[in-house]
Amino acid sequence: MRRDPLIGRWVLVAPERSRRPNDFRSSGGLISPCPFCPGHEAETPPEVFAVREPGTPRDAPGWKIRVVPNKYPAVAPHGRARRPAGGFFESRAGLGAHEVVIDSPAHDLEFPDLPPESVRNVLEIYRQRVESLEAGTGTAYVQLFKNKGREAGATLRHPHAQIVSLPLLPQCLREDIDASGRFFKKTGGCLHCRIGEEEEKAGERIVARNDGFLAFVPFAARFPYEIRLLPRRHEARFSGTSGEEIAALADILGRVLRSVKSLLEDPSYNLVLHQGPAPAARTEAGNARAASLHWYLEIIPVTTRVAGFEWGTGFHINPVLPEAAARRLRV
Amino acid sequence: MRRDPLIGRWVLVAPERSRRPNDFRSSGGLISPCPFCPGHEAETPPEVFAVREPGTPRDAPGWKIRVVPNKYPAVAPHGRARRPAGGFFESRAGLGAHEVVIDSPAHDLEFPDLPPESVRNVLEIYRQRVESLEAGTGTAYVQLFKNKGREAGATLRHPHAQIVSLPLLPQCLREDIDASGRFFKKTGGCLHCRIGEEEEKAGERIVARNDGFLAFVPFAARFPYEIRLLPRRHEARFSGTSGEEIAALADILGRVLRSVKSLLEDPSYNLVLHQGPAPAARTEAGNARAASLHWYLEIIPVTTRVAGFEWGTGFHINPVLPEAAARRLRV
Repeated sequence: MRRDPLIGRWVLVAPERSRRPNDFRSSGGLISPCPFCPGHEAETPPEVFAVREPGTPRDAPGWKIRVVPNKYPAVAPHGRARRPAGGFFESRAGLGAHEVVIDSPAHDLEFPDLPPESVRNVLEIYRQRVESLEAGTGTAYVQLFKNKGREAGATLRHPHAQIVSLPLLPQCLREDIDASGRFFKKTGGCLHCRIGEEEEKAGERIVARNDGFLAFVPFAARFPYEIRLLPRRHEARFSGTSGEEIAALADILGRVLRSVKSLLEDPSYNLVLHQGPAPAARTEAGNARAASLHWYLEIIPVTTRVAGFEWGTGFHINPVLPEAAARRLRV
Repeated sequence: MRRDPLIGRWVLVAPERSRRPNDFRSSGGLISPCPFCPGHEAETPPEVFAVREPGTPRDAPGWKIRVVPNKYPAVAPHGRARRPAGGFFESRAGLGAHEVVIDSPAHDLEFPDLPPESVRNVLEIYRQRVESLEAGTGTAYVQLFKNKGREAGATLRHPHAQIVSLPLLPQCLREDIDASGRFFKKTGGCLHCRIGEEEEKAGERIVARNDGFLAFVPFAARFPYEIRLLPRRHEARFSGTSGEEIAALADILGRVLRSVKSLLEDPSYNLVLHQGPAPAARTEAGNARAASLHWYLEIIPVTTRVAGFEWGTGFHINPVLPEAAARRLRV
């Protein structure tokens, strides 16, 4: 991990990742067999967890959900910085775990195609793996995400999620802590809960609702058809989600993703978790401030490119009015 | 412009931009004539400036470089926020100018293909237009950028740059002001000058040099083959660049872009200006802190996708070691 001396942001330098196979690069040529399909278990590192049919052995077919270490990890359990600390430039070892959750044995069944019960089971495994990684020594934060489709950065088609534990708090979380902390100090309440209330009140950006969650296009969405899935119950971390809430999430996620798939003709998208720091990092972040955080999921369909304006300013240009996006997506 | 109530970042909502024509979307079908080619001057708004052969009339062929307002602007000279201020959500009118500089009459000659003299002339026009927009009433910042190729967000192939003036300081500039200001307070020097010195000393990330500029892959580059072009002379804004420096920039930019084109097989890229606030905004930003800023250009070849990890954490994963990138690019 290298720290930018200008803006202080960390970058994970991971040359191993350039050796990743790529389903999408082979144009018309042979597509090599999928390493995530049953029968190819030997092509991934040994599994760390699986939901299996009784009696089937590890790293063999018979699994329903399979968790393996990423073969081309962005962080690693051991290692040290390539160059010593000191001097002007700062680096540190990228210590952590990088896991892949393979959603199902089916090569091309995405969340919108699976029965709610299956989505629920996969989400529960996501929750457990996030919880497990959060307990890792030195873990400050756990990032869960799903890249679907080439334009969203996926290199393999077979539906999967990735979970990465980090030794320090990410930039986005620091910004959330600052904003949520300031709001908490001023009002005694949670900024995310308030945003949810205001979106409910406005109504025009709501995409879907159920007992546990609210799905809306944020007032200042950066991307066309960006959707935030906010749990109604105030809870800092995804791992604190109850079984009932996981079921409610499976319901609303399925409905919203089916709407995205149909409206935007099966687009690539990123599904991104935002949450509070891991328990061990709470001291660093401040207990009070961490307690004012509120986890949520973000769906970013890829319909535009990040371009020069965005890289120069940090501002985004959104060519679709959030209210219009919500109206078209509403389910 | 809408302000995100969570992280306070502004988003430009510009539904008009979804009506842009797109050279890259027409798959095998008819490609409509290029609105930036000579003979199609009527398809752009009337020109605000042009370098012309003597005696040729405005908005007609005979130009060498042509500047027009963007037909689908992200900001506009007049207008007001769609919804009144007040309440929880904050918005304001996106007041500003959005210009396009058409580099030459040639539909497919990019900087690497043009003689240094032509690149120099185009860069001088960029400088003049940036200076002109900086003088606009209420302008806090002027952003210059060039999107080359579909993957970099371009919708038209014909080489051009865009210049946008903004009524407030962008997020990226605030971060630069904070970091440069802290460094200035601590050392009395410029952080960017220091980064240049440290990169010179290290040597291994240098791509090219000349009297006026240093081109290097930053120590914590976010993207493979990202290149920073740093002027050796301390100067906050691009518009303060001398004629000699523009010539030196044309030289190094041509060399570096030819190397990028050859190594990465004519990739899409973003060319992005980073600089200090417009003169009128200096008071807001603080004169002392603004004076400690230092303009530079950034070249971002598009070889990877921004994916879920980046959107979740704000950190980037770079699969190419910056030293290896610099070695391959060195000219």
